[in-house]
Amino acid sequence: MKRVGFVQTNPEFGAVESNLKRALDLASKVESDLLVFPELFNTGYLFLSREEALKLSEGLDGPTIKRLSDFASEHSTAIVAGFPERDGGKVYNSAVAIDIDGDVKGVYRKTHLFYEEKLIFDPGDTGFRVFDLAGMRVGIMICFDWVFPESARSLALSGAQIIAHPSCLVMPYAPKADPVRAFENRVFIILSDRSGVEERGGKKLRYHGMSLISDPKMNILTQAPEEGEHVGIAEIDPKLAEDKRVNELNDIFLDRRPEFYGKIC
Amino acid sequence: MKRVGFVQTNPEFGAVESNLKRALDLASKVESDLLVFPELFNTGYLFLSREEALKLSEGLDGPTIKRLSDFASEHSTAIVAGFPERDGGKVYNSAVAIDIDGDVKGVYRKTHLFYEEKLIFDPGDTGFRVFDLAGMRVGIMICFDWVFPESARSLALSGAQIIAHPSCLVMPYAPKADPVRAFENRVFIILSDRSGVEERGGKKLRYHGMSLISDPKMNILTQAPEEGEHVGIAEIDPKLAEDKRVNELNDIFLDRRPEFYGKIC
Repeated sequence: MKRVGFVQTNPEFGAVESNLKRALDLASKVESDLLVFPELFNTGYLFLSREEALKLSEGLDGPTIKRLSDFASEHSTAIVAGFPERDGGKVYNSAVAIDIDGDVKGVYRKTHLFYEEKLIFDPGDTGFRVFDLAGMRVGIMICFDWVFPESARSLALSGAQIIAHPSCLVMPYAPKADPVRAFENRVFIILSDRSGVEERGGKKLRYHGMSLISDPKMNILTQAPEEGEHVGIAEIDPKLAEDKRVNELNDIFLDRRPEFYGKIC
Repeated sequence: MKRVGFVQTNPEFGAVESNLKRALDLASKVESDLLVFPELFNTGYLFLSREEALKLSEGLDGPTIKRLSDFASEHSTAIVAGFPERDGGKVYNSAVAIDIDGDVKGVYRKTHLFYEEKLIFDPGDTGFRVFDLAGMRVGIMICFDWVFPESARSLALSGAQIIAHPSCLVMPYAPKADPVRAFENRVFIILSDRSGVEERGGKKLRYHGMSLISDPKMNILTQAPEEGEHVGIAEIDPKLAEDKRVNELNDIFLDRRPEFYGKIC
């Protein structure tokens, strides 16, 4: 059995140091094998320009990743966390995967950018990746990626037992849809959303919180409320996600008939 | 605007004539442009053998299709209805598409067979088809097809405005999932489920009813209860399903990135 969880935060825009401190203080209160932090959790979400994102972004050798890596090894927990990633002149809406020994396994760069993210970030070029974390197979999708069933499907077909879903939800749909994504792929999903309101430069966004963990049968194991900072932990057996059977005669992967799915690819 | 609906029935196994009569009596009470009847609504669901299915099945020139075609032209309504389809030595779990003039447009043969259907029916060979019915583009998936996101996705990518979903649900998940399917594809879905219990040859199945119509934004426009026979009608603008935009910068079809979906096909 593994202890996996979300850390629902309410970061202050641009205050990286205090956002990290608050999030890791919350995280330090629980025992875990894997923790998922929200999308862009270190910087906040409401960038007004690409220049701002370039300025607040960092590479895999940056201070945010160093802090997370140190926390991971000190607490022997794996981490998936959203952050703005700098790579040369590019800036991605990414999530890093860090193992329990602090080893940075790599990043996922958001495939489907939402709304004005298109003006700020480069479209992700990694595709859907699955990482070995704390002895589990963990795939990552970020926020709006959920709307495209191809995201979770691609991760599950690549062997993910768990889908980590860092988010900054400005629409209320994902907490209803993620349990369906879990069911249709027979995986666990950890939705780690932020809460609160951001107001900058004449723009205002309200985030929906409602972070949750769903098991492969559409059961919500734990869920945060809409407001505030919360850590949610569930004890799960990730191997349950390897069983794709619905009954003795149906296996949702073996029963797929890709010869009829040609429109999708 | 179009009036579309489901006819939730509780057929008696093998009593084709009275099942048809009850279903069409219900249907005759409403004004509609399109009505969807459940999976295998004329015969009942709980076949004990392939031989039984062969015996109760019929071709597109059979009496069930004739009755439905006559009803369609008399009431100027299109129909999608599940029935066991005989084609030579083969028998499919099919749904017929009939236009408002009684014209039989064709059939969809269930792609993903559920449980012991695998022992009874031949796997569908039509793929996911979209029919012009009552001036609308109507795709069909049958019951367990919903579990595979590729089914609704293929229909939507083929231009379906509405997905007709004849069902005999023995699991409670589809009424929660169909609104998500509608949302992720920005289409209407008409789930037409049966109700009641079938008990034959030592087997017993309970059906979940809960037929519903969902709009492209996950709103349930009308829903039947779990028990009993019900007709549900909603007035909809099918053209809303052609708008795949979430906002000025996101279109869920144009934003797809098939270069990263290769595992699916």
